[in-house]
Amino acid sequence: MDDPREHILRQAAKLFAQKGYAASSLNELAAAMSYSKGAIYNYFSSKQELYDAIIIASLGGLQRAAEAAVDPRAPAADQLKAYMVAHATYLSDNYDSFVTMLVGFSGMADAPLKADALALRDVHEGLLRRILADGIAQGAFRGALGGADPAMAGRAVLSLLSWMARWFDPAGKKSAREVAEDYFDMLVNGLKA
Amino acid sequence: MDDPREHILRQAAKLFAQKGYAASSLNELAAAMSYSKGAIYNYFSSKQELYDAIIIASLGGLQRAAEAAVDPRAPAADQLKAYMVAHATYLSDNYDSFVTMLVGFSGMADAPLKADALALRDVHEGLLRRILADGIAQGAFRGALGGADPAMAGRAVLSLLSWMARWFDPAGKKSAREVAEDYFDMLVNGLKA
Repeated sequence: MDDPREHILRQAAKLFAQKGYAASSLNELAAAMSYSKGAIYNYFSSKQELYDAIIIASLGGLQRAAEAAVDPRAPAADQLKAYMVAHATYLSDNYDSFVTMLVGFSGMADAPLKADALALRDVHEGLLRRILADGIAQGAFRGALGGADPAMAGRAVLSLLSWMARWFDPAGKKSAREVAEDYFDMLVNGLKA
Repeated sequence: MDDPREHILRQAAKLFAQKGYAASSLNELAAAMSYSKGAIYNYFSSKQELYDAIIIASLGGLQRAAEAAVDPRAPAADQLKAYMVAHATYLSDNYDSFVTMLVGFSGMADAPLKADALALRDVHEGLLRRILADGIAQGAFRGALGGADPAMAGRAVLSLLSWMARWFDPAGKKSAREVAEDYFDMLVNGLKA
């Protein structure tokens, strides 16, 4: 059994993912959970605070999952694969939170990421850039050629993984691991025959 | 000078991109345009109709831009590059509409794509899959290996391009063409040294 705070976060992510942040209310959340609104207020003082807590929990969990999966002594390509699989798997396991974070908020001006969320995102992206830069330094990845600089390559990796919040079905035919492995193969080995 | 319908569509896309679909109202749109709400109702009977018209115009324009850019007699890799550059450039030139379509709606349940929008998306994605399948048939792209089947490779291409609605700045340092060319290089040639 979840502790109540966890339970509220999970149900709120589900509601925001379904209806979007702007169209959701704490009254609705309370009704969906058979909680009183007061019970929710014991843990969160506003919808914005609840949203922020979902984002921090998701980004923090994502960042820790990738860091735990990556062995910094392994070859850079193995590290990249481990990072991509960990990211995709964590997204799949926490799908509602990722839909809320990446899809469910409404417009650019609404609910932008706070400084602490941006910091977590930067740590997660920093690990990826470190892997890519090491791979270039070690001669495993192409260097200054075209898009293969750490910033653009990192953006490509995170674009592929983030967009999964728009189409991936955790109950679908391909697992998150398989999708990540396909993307890894395409990005590293290229489509060229 | 735009015709009034075009002008309303453009201003509505700007408002939806800024505030999100759910948080925007026709009253606000009218005020921002110095139109009366009645003037808007001459062209669109509801916010949903306005949203649908933005999506259809964007997807239709995107589909035509890619089709016009791709020469079906050219080598598959050239076709893929032309497709990616045309898509990215059209997105950049119509940025508010793409943010509205890909970011600005609120949640999964809200404002889903209608059948005619899905049909346009399928035509656009179909052209991409045709290019990739031809490239495999001609031996230019890898075949059954890993992710390099037309469906997953197509998804990767469209994920990279679609996610631009979340980070790309039409006024920024890299043009949409340069980003698309970088992505093309990475995807086709691979990161591997």
